[in-house]
Amino acid sequence: MSLADAMITNASGAQMKHVRDLLAKSKYRTEQGQYVVEGIRMVRELMPEDIISLYVSESFEKTDQMQSLSVPAELVSDSVFEKISDTKTPQGVLAVAKQKHWQLQDLLQKERVTLFFLERLQDPGNLGTIIRCAEGAGVDGIILSPGCADVYNPKVIRSTMGSVLRVPIVAVSDWEETLCEAKAAQVELFAAHLQGTCDYDQVAYPAKTGVLIGNEANGLTEATAHVCDHLVKIPMEGKVESLNAAIAASVFMYEIYRQKRQQGRVRT
Amino acid sequence: MSLADAMITNASGAQMKHVRDLLAKSKYRTEQGQYVVEGIRMVRELMPEDIISLYVSESFEKTDQMQSLSVPAELVSDSVFEKISDTKTPQGVLAVAKQKHWQLQDLLQKERVTLFFLERLQDPGNLGTIIRCAEGAGVDGIILSPGCADVYNPKVIRSTMGSVLRVPIVAVSDWEETLCEAKAAQVELFAAHLQGTCDYDQVAYPAKTGVLIGNEANGLTEATAHVCDHLVKIPMEGKVESLNAAIAASVFMYEIYRQKRQQGRVRT
Repeated sequence: MSLADAMITNASGAQMKHVRDLLAKSKYRTEQGQYVVEGIRMVRELMPEDIISLYVSESFEKTDQMQSLSVPAELVSDSVFEKISDTKTPQGVLAVAKQKHWQLQDLLQKERVTLFFLERLQDPGNLGTIIRCAEGAGVDGIILSPGCADVYNPKVIRSTMGSVLRVPIVAVSDWEETLCEAKAAQVELFAAHLQGTCDYDQVAYPAKTGVLIGNEANGLTEATAHVCDHLVKIPMEGKVESLNAAIAASVFMYEIYRQKRQQGRVRT
Repeated sequence: MSLADAMITNASGAQMKHVRDLLAKSKYRTEQGQYVVEGIRMVRELMPEDIISLYVSESFEKTDQMQSLSVPAELVSDSVFEKISDTKTPQGVLAVAKQKHWQLQDLLQKERVTLFFLERLQDPGNLGTIIRCAEGAGVDGIILSPGCADVYNPKVIRSTMGSVLRVPIVAVSDWEETLCEAKAAQVELFAAHLQGTCDYDQVAYPAKTGVLIGNEANGLTEATAHVCDHLVKIPMEGKVESLNAAIAASVFMYEIYRQKRQQGRVRT
């Protein structure tokens, strides 16, 4: 570990502005193909070749955790670090990293695959929670329609607890075409739908399964539901009209995972 | 429907201060035994006898929805309503209501009962989401330990989407004693625990089931886990160490509900 000679003490300089813009602006993140990862656990998980720059605060630099960093870091004064950090109590370590680009076809061509297709899922917390649960339930990939929250939004990154680095995620530009490609690759599509004709746990999920989860307020669009092979519902008691989108996705994920484990079809 | 003669145009008066304090202060809510319900759908679900006062904005007063209100409302200027409302785009209707007090013993004495015990669950969004899912999955009641988020916190109320009015919820003062009472009432206690010896879906949940869900960051305390009859885990792939508390609770809820439906033990 070697530190750059000079400590960054100006929050308005080009480097710090770059970090703040990456945190604040989805469009800028996409243009640059970069994003920000905060906290020692997630930074440690980044491949050294994916780290573009690494910043530590004065306070962090005095800790033992410096030894666990895989690339040289630049030193930032505590007060500037607080300004660039997206968290209330920054740990003092932050990386600018390359965005990952997974290929849809790589996912679709697998012999056995469970994919979740999220349509205009807008809440970053929901998206992050879904990604975290997806890794836990052994989901092979997540496909995002246009209009979904940006997966590199710092709130999403944070709520995935690191899963965003490990779960293949593809944001597509043509949703209709994507669903057609999935069907062409023999992925059977199940729409989570309030008008579903079959309960989600009465389905024997096939080797190639895709589940579609709709927007928080409006559910799936009719056009999307129409393309799906099956409309499936989560039964609900009382006066509940729908579940939170992340909860609905998780209930599906764990039912599919339960079936896989029952059949001895688990990868581990 | 009759409106009071005078429109409230001062946000600092005693009535409006009462509303703001009920929204902002958990201790004040508890002392007063009151809370605030916003939005037409939830207000409409309140029993007339539970409504202490009802406020509508000038704009709301001009809509057809006035006809669906069950008790007389007081008129508030739009600008004052915006100040007292807890939401970004207020619907213009808000009730001060009596808090509900369910009895623990009424829940414990049922012949068949599924209860969720939440230990120091601190995030209002998580608590609200759990209450909403609990109604959906036919859970009979939720028991909150000391240190949980206040169920009458406006964020909790909002994220329950009305379920808070329908699911019995008991906040207890002595957690250890509560768990002992549950066991004495033959409720079998299952701890959701990372060191669980059995997968959550390998358990045949008995007629009287209690599931314990721990704090977001730390899980269940050792003392609580020790009191439980079984430590049960949700299996996880990859590097996931735990699931979001609301997701974990929901996965348990829907597995128990799946088993009930399979056995024809559903109330509807």
